Amino acid sequence: MIAVPAMTAAVVLGLDVGGSSVKYRLASADDSDRMPNALAEGSVTTPADDPVQGLAAIARQVTGENRLVAVTVAVPGLVDETSGTVRRSANLPALDGLPLGPDLAARLGVPVSVINDGRAAAVAEARWGAGAGANDVFTLALGTGIAGSHIVAGCVVDGAHGVAGELGHIVVEPDGMACRCGQKGCLETVVGAPALRRAWHAAGGSGSPKHLLAAYETGDERAQEVVERGAGALADAIVTLLALVDPGVIVIGGGLASAPHRIVERTTALVAERATFHHVPRILPARLGKWAGAVGTAAEARALSRRVPA
Amino acid sequence: MIAVPAMTAAVVLGLDVGGSSVKYRLASADDSDRMPNALAEGSVTTPADDPVQGLAAIARQVTGENRLVAVTVAVPGLVDETSGTVRRSANLPALDGLPLGPDLAARLGVPVSVINDGRAAAVAEARWGAGAGANDVFTLALGTGIAGSHIVAGCVVDGAHGVAGELGHIVVEPDGMACRCGQKGCLETVVGAPALRRAWHAAGGSGSPKHLLAAYETGDERAQEVVERGAGALADAIVTLLALVDPGVIVIGGGLASAPHRIVERTTALVAERATFHHVPRILPARLGKWAGAVGTAAEARALSRRVPA
Repeated sequence: MIAVPAMTAAVVLGLDVGGSSVKYRLASADDSDRMPNALAEGSVTTPADDPVQGLAAIARQVTGENRLVAVTVAVPGLVDETSGTVRRSANLPALDGLPLGPDLAARLGVPVSVINDGRAAAVAEARWGAGAGANDVFTLALGTGIAGSHIVAGCVVDGAHGVAGELGHIVVEPDGMACRCGQKGCLETVVGAPALRRAWHAAGGSGSPKHLLAAYETGDERAQEVVERGAGALADAIVTLLALVDPGVIVIGGGLASAPHRIVERTTALVAERATFHHVPRILPARLGKWAGAVGTAAEARALSRRVPA
Repeated sequence: MIAVPAMTAAVVLGLDVGGSSVKYRLASADDSDRMPNALAEGSVTTPADDPVQGLAAIARQVTGENRLVAVTVAVPGLVDETSGTVRRSANLPALDGLPLGPDLAARLGVPVSVINDGRAAAVAEARWGAGAGANDVFTLALGTGIAGSHIVAGCVVDGAHGVAGELGHIVVEPDGMACRCGQKGCLETVVGAPALRRAWHAAGGSGSPKHLLAAYETGDERAQEVVERGAGALADAIVTLLALVDPGVIVIGGGLASAPHRIVERTTALVAERATFHHVPRILPARLGKWAGAVGTAAEARALSRRVPA
């Protein structure tokens, strides 16, 4: 009898590259539509020098003895998905202008696609997180900035020029603060993490927005005032979203929306109060948390492995 | 030799039913994607009593010796397109709850579909009017109310519950006037025809918004102030639309936007001034004017004739 060597499993890898860490998810290269299983998942420090070499080393280490068939990398910034080139990344200047997809593919010998990190996380959250089962989902990531994505049937609806969904930059306070985008009084200038921190400090508080939310929990009146103003602005923006886009479900995630979800709760109550003719959808806290991007890239790598025969 | 009788042409009929008149367009039942040709086009008084009987009489008269194969009726109000029933029509209470499609089909012996009039006009304007050639068009009809429709690849993108595109009801003046929708300071409360008339009279003018626009043309300062405020509010709403929806082209029509298009011109200039990161699309005056609804219904009837073999 001839000994047949055991087949190593065909796997795909998703890499969610952030300013300080790279989150990875290794999953089977199956043809399901389920959430990509995690054969391995974790986080390592973002390579400091040569990003292509560093990401290739991470990929090899995570893959181990498995047979890697496709990789998707998510990066913070503007990406040309067709060429796999990073057009601009504010958080990771080492990636600026880098043909990351082709370069990493050349090193690993497998197809590599490159996508925007927010988009990867939004699609995962819509398909397998809080939006699971809904056909039409609008996701919001509250953090330093506020990112919005409209996902219909699992695909991002991004407008005629790829810039739709910018809920963070609709004006909620016409005479408000200058925004980095050049407008005044954008939602981000009221509910972004720096804005909340500023408002919290101006009210006499100290520490980060997490401290603000902790103080809110203890009934601190100053904290309640700051959270109320933020939730009010977010509710106004969402009511505008309902009038223009009419999403099926709204999912709110991002660092600022992590438990205890008070901003989401207050926002939901205020949207219900202020809506009139609008159809008020469910507003849910995100479920996948900080792993959403890794899940999304693993899913994208799985899709890539189907398009390009191994 | 046997004489073969001349075939009469197969035609479709679009009826755009308004509060005072019914506009009709008779077109060939061909399989082109061109604007439905007008074998006959015109306007008759809206039947006062039995709407089904009245519309059937109009259909027979307009069709003449041709062979009618499908009819589409556009009505102002909420329509259940699947059943052909008018759910609610503020302008034509005689239609309320009427199974107009089936009833008219029974009288005429051809398939009849029923659609919303604004939607019919928007699709026609997007496909064969100012939006011709663009894949992604947002149409605005400025009149008593302000109706918006987002049309992608010839189809209305109307959200998860069919109520997307309500640009007239996004709040542009948070402390503004009460709107009939229950909110305060909606775009309609500033730029709707009654709002413009009110502002014009408050500024010492007299007559309708048409008089306001005529006075604007002569350089009347009060008129300029009123138009400027209206165009400013419309520009703010459009900048919000760019951030959330990112349309390919914006087409502005409706009674208030008819020549001399001053509101459109001022709005376009203000959008360009105020936009920052946004992609500013072309903003064009509508081309089909008051016949857009009839063109849209004729097109819909043509599509219906293809679905239901004659």
